[in-house]
Amino acid sequence: MLSKNQIKFVNSLKQKKFIQEHGLFIAEGTKVVEELMKSSIKVKDIYGTSDFFRKTPIDKSINRFEIKESELERISAFATPNEVLAVCEIPVHQLEASFLNNKLTLVLDDIKDPGNLGTIIRIADWFGIETIICSTETVYAFSPKVVQATMGSIARIKLHYVDLSSFFKVQNLKFKVQSFGALLNGENIYSKQLPSSGFIVIGNESKGISESVLPFITDKISIPSFSHFKTDGGEAESLNAAIATSIICSEFRRR
Amino acid sequence: MLSKNQIKFVNSLKQKKFIQEHGLFIAEGTKVVEELMKSSIKVKDIYGTSDFFRKTPIDKSINRFEIKESELERISAFATPNEVLAVCEIPVHQLEASFLNNKLTLVLDDIKDPGNLGTIIRIADWFGIETIICSTETVYAFSPKVVQATMGSIARIKLHYVDLSSFFKVQNLKFKVQSFGALLNGENIYSKQLPSSGFIVIGNESKGISESVLPFITDKISIPSFSHFKTDGGEAESLNAAIATSIICSEFRRR
Repeated sequence: MLSKNQIKFVNSLKQKKFIQEHGLFIAEGTKVVEELMKSSIKVKDIYGTSDFFRKTPIDKSINRFEIKESELERISAFATPNEVLAVCEIPVHQLEASFLNNKLTLVLDDIKDPGNLGTIIRIADWFGIETIICSTETVYAFSPKVVQATMGSIARIKLHYVDLSSFFKVQNLKFKVQSFGALLNGENIYSKQLPSSGFIVIGNESKGISESVLPFITDKISIPSFSHFKTDGGEAESLNAAIATSIICSEFRRR
Repeated sequence: MLSKNQIKFVNSLKQKKFIQEHGLFIAEGTKVVEELMKSSIKVKDIYGTSDFFRKTPIDKSINRFEIKESELERISAFATPNEVLAVCEIPVHQLEASFLNNKLTLVLDDIKDPGNLGTIIRIADWFGIETIICSTETVYAFSPKVVQATMGSIARIKLHYVDLSSFFKVQNLKFKVQSFGALLNGENIYSKQLPSSGFIVIGNESKGISESVLPFITDKISIPSFSHFKTDGGEAESLNAAIATSIICSEFRRR
């Protein structure tokens, strides 16, 4: 049975403040928790139903708590919890500027929607982008909704929250790295020459790339719309930020 | 002030059964409602705050109800409603097989997540795909969450719910249309020759393309993963269905 203190503690890990204070985050659902156990992430506690433990072997180093579904509901961040909740340690990565030098890196300029950030982390994983640099205003990656949307990819991506203008200033001084900004008035991404390294900057869902980051964009890129192919001619206004990220990453990698 | 009957009626339009019975759906938020008013969709009633009506001119043919925010909360499908809710007529489109003959069309085989369907409708709009054929098990497009996620694109896309095997049988008899199925063991989409017309079949989020639809797939396609570019070598398992759709549509259109 869960103690009051356990319930209180796990529930506190739904808030950024306490996640950061303890250096711990929660992950939920069979698939995500299995992915995390396979990864380099340290899984500390597992709260699971008997169904979960029957089919999933877990390492001895993990604290195991078999609980009822009704108890899982009391600690889950979701309306319909799925068998298991794990408390995991937030991995700590050093941000080494030279490491990014010859790689493709995503830079997120105030992405606000947890589902978008989670999906972008999953896209990065698929396209072999190992580091994501987030502005300090970007939604916090170790909150339950983001972790869920990454479907386990959060274990395989290095995330850093930094002040973007300071970051770019340092990078620019040391290296000459191209920064590709997704903008409405950029060059057609399908015909542009794209290198195998550089920064891909994705702006906020409604405001785009911020004023303070714009000066560091060396190459403006756009995904052209094909709305005019439709007989009614109605114009689509925009693509979702995660969708734009996927198309841009696909274009960089396919060449 | 809203009457009890109005509240009951609008709230009933959150369920597929009543949406279909009345042929009416609800759309919410300033941006989406403005998009719908500009489109060919018939907007019947608008429930808006004084703030909304102050800045947004609306046509005389629309029934206008100025309400308080607290009243909007009682009819909204969302926890934090945004200024306005509109009741609109579901557009009726004929599904003409010949119309699809020389076009690119999306076919959704049991997409279950409202956010995914909404995003896919928005992607179709962007890439000039005017018709989406949904399996009968695909989540209902005129439910509030899907409408919201389309950001207005629902007004510009023709949606049909059909039994997919019957649909393909008829299409195959009449026309020789290629059907491109997104599968794990397909041809690399980046190197494959792609025509400017055909069906792009997207499978269910966890099960992929169903057994009954597989025989109609003429070309299996896959998006290769670049996970191995990362130094840790951890493998991303899959892409979200909407993300896969966007990359495939982008590949078809860019050529």
